Amino acid sequence: MTQPIPTLHWQGDIEGTLVLLDQKLLPTKTELVVCTNVDEVWIAIQELSVRGAPAIGIAAAYGVCLGAQVALDTELQPMQSRIRQVCDYLAESRPTAVNLTWALARMRTVAEQASDCNPRELAEALLAEARAIHAEDAQMCADIGRHGADLLAELPVGAGILTHCNAGALATGGQGTALSVIFELANRDKHPRVWVDETRPLLQGARLTTWELMQRDIECTLICDSAAAHVMAAGQVQLVITGADRIAANGDAANKIGTYGVAVHARSHGIPFYIAAPTSTFDLSIANGSQIPIEQRSGQEVVQGFGTATAPTGVAVYNPAFDMTPAELISGIITELGVILSPTQERIAPIVHPGGKK
Amino acid sequence: MTQPIPTLHWQGDIEGTLVLLDQKLLPTKTELVVCTNVDEVWIAIQELSVRGAPAIGIAAAYGVCLGAQVALDTELQPMQSRIRQVCDYLAESRPTAVNLTWALARMRTVAEQASDCNPRELAEALLAEARAIHAEDAQMCADIGRHGADLLAELPVGAGILTHCNAGALATGGQGTALSVIFELANRDKHPRVWVDETRPLLQGARLTTWELMQRDIECTLICDSAAAHVMAAGQVQLVITGADRIAANGDAANKIGTYGVAVHARSHGIPFYIAAPTSTFDLSIANGSQIPIEQRSGQEVVQGFGTATAPTGVAVYNPAFDMTPAELISGIITELGVILSPTQERIAPIVHPGGKK
Repeated sequence: MTQPIPTLHWQGDIEGTLVLLDQKLLPTKTELVVCTNVDEVWIAIQELSVRGAPAIGIAAAYGVCLGAQVALDTELQPMQSRIRQVCDYLAESRPTAVNLTWALARMRTVAEQASDCNPRELAEALLAEARAIHAEDAQMCADIGRHGADLLAELPVGAGILTHCNAGALATGGQGTALSVIFELANRDKHPRVWVDETRPLLQGARLTTWELMQRDIECTLICDSAAAHVMAAGQVQLVITGADRIAANGDAANKIGTYGVAVHARSHGIPFYIAAPTSTFDLSIANGSQIPIEQRSGQEVVQGFGTATAPTGVAVYNPAFDMTPAELISGIITELGVILSPTQERIAPIVHPGGKK
Repeated sequence: MTQPIPTLHWQGDIEGTLVLLDQKLLPTKTELVVCTNVDEVWIAIQELSVRGAPAIGIAAAYGVCLGAQVALDTELQPMQSRIRQVCDYLAESRPTAVNLTWALARMRTVAEQASDCNPRELAEALLAEARAIHAEDAQMCADIGRHGADLLAELPVGAGILTHCNAGALATGGQGTALSVIFELANRDKHPRVWVDETRPLLQGARLTTWELMQRDIECTLICDSAAAHVMAAGQVQLVITGADRIAANGDAANKIGTYGVAVHARSHGIPFYIAAPTSTFDLSIANGSQIPIEQRSGQEVVQGFGTATAPTGVAVYNPAFDMTPAELISGIITELGVILSPTQERIAPIVHPGGKK
């Protein structure tokens, strides 16, 4: 099952455009953003018209195709130089999600390996690679859903599952990561009852996750982030599952601010806490989560997030977009290649390194 | 130091009015609500124009004075009957804060014990009792601040203190409970650096606590509730202190939704978690927190809180106004009569029972 309106898609040939569903405006407005150049993609990523680690990677790959368009009528070398420049530029749009770096590295490799071709042929190859990243992501989502539902085969019918932020179809090129598992559990008649953290400051849970679940007739209840522990204490949550934006070699995982707190609460209530993410989310070049860069965003998101001032003028605001959940709090990481239970470097390396696309 | 505009005050004699600073509109608008009858007080409490357990108790006491005005020209018995009716009515305005019940019980006692007087004389006695509750509350706040600052005498200069919701001058008849401790630490040149949880859904932290701290030039930083654990993990919090709305005989404490989650995080990071509340907040008639009624409020507060729809139409919302922090997570309860460390029924009873106003 896919969204009625795709999260993102490429329209046309190598001179085409990237069309994004503007997630800033959901669920009250359904508008498309048509990107015709690389700056527009950079802004769409930075301002969160497209968000979610896998979707950001796909958007950036298509962004390289847009960036290449200005060099179509030059020679191979200027074209390659342009690709390098575009990749460097897009890599700066958001610092935490490693899928962005990963997708750009694949595009860069296509450009660097080109020889005996003209810029238009290279542009064809780049578009093919972007489309491959997109298609592989959709397959990865389906595989994550299947592995997750297999893992959770013993979950009782009607179990409560809490999720934070949005790791659904809107965050990926397919049906999501964490939500893919929930969708597959629903397909298998598990009738999950989903608790959705609203996910301040930008309310991806309230705006996007409830929207996706309601479209699929999956029972869901929206709560303020601060109510999650209370709902857990009341015995209403049997499982927590979220996505991730970057996972270190030892299994420490960066995800939307608040995920770490949810993981602490899950542990203190004896509730399993899973992360669902493709292997492209792993960054084996860093040993642990302390080295993951945490994006700091404008305090305006906190104090002006609803078009109304919600705090005194001039108040100091700290607005980290992500936090880091240590591996020891993670019951397992559900990837497209299988589940890594109680993740450690020793358990991650054999699964991610050979099979991953790094 | 008091607010430039009092949180609430009585204007005039027994035929006077109750004037409230409308906290729904702060900090963007500073407007007063003038209550001339008991219905207006009921609505002001229910809609949170006045909020905070001690302030609700004071407002309700003055509300009884307003309710009595319609019977001033009757006889003593109809007047007493009217007072009973008004007390029953106001007690239903909010179910969790016990200070409301406590203040109304004091007013009821004044009415029941009246004899050999006319309704106007009883009205004088009721207004005197309401003013006494108000004045005592101001003194309690000062005493809580002093006991708290004495307790925390060893806190390093510049320590990080995290608070949730608003337990300041706006929540009381004086300078607050949790914030009174912080104000007194500031008076003693401890230069606290305060982390303020915004406190969804109604943002009492963002709107009210930052406002009070900024007015007093105390360093403060606003965060989303979900960022508290991340800030703790970064070593930025040395102490957590909040208010409470009702405390059971064993020390279990109900406070604003999210407090329990903060207490779990504090424990898991080895940070002391204190509650500051007058002894009128204790309800010794209930053994433990599982018996504290938790007010459920409209889901509209979550999805329409800022005049903008932030979730799909028709979404199910769970919006408990409070949660319950078990005594075992509470390092101590700071009252006007002293500090109850590691609260248990045995430690609470000798302090609260004889000295409390129950």
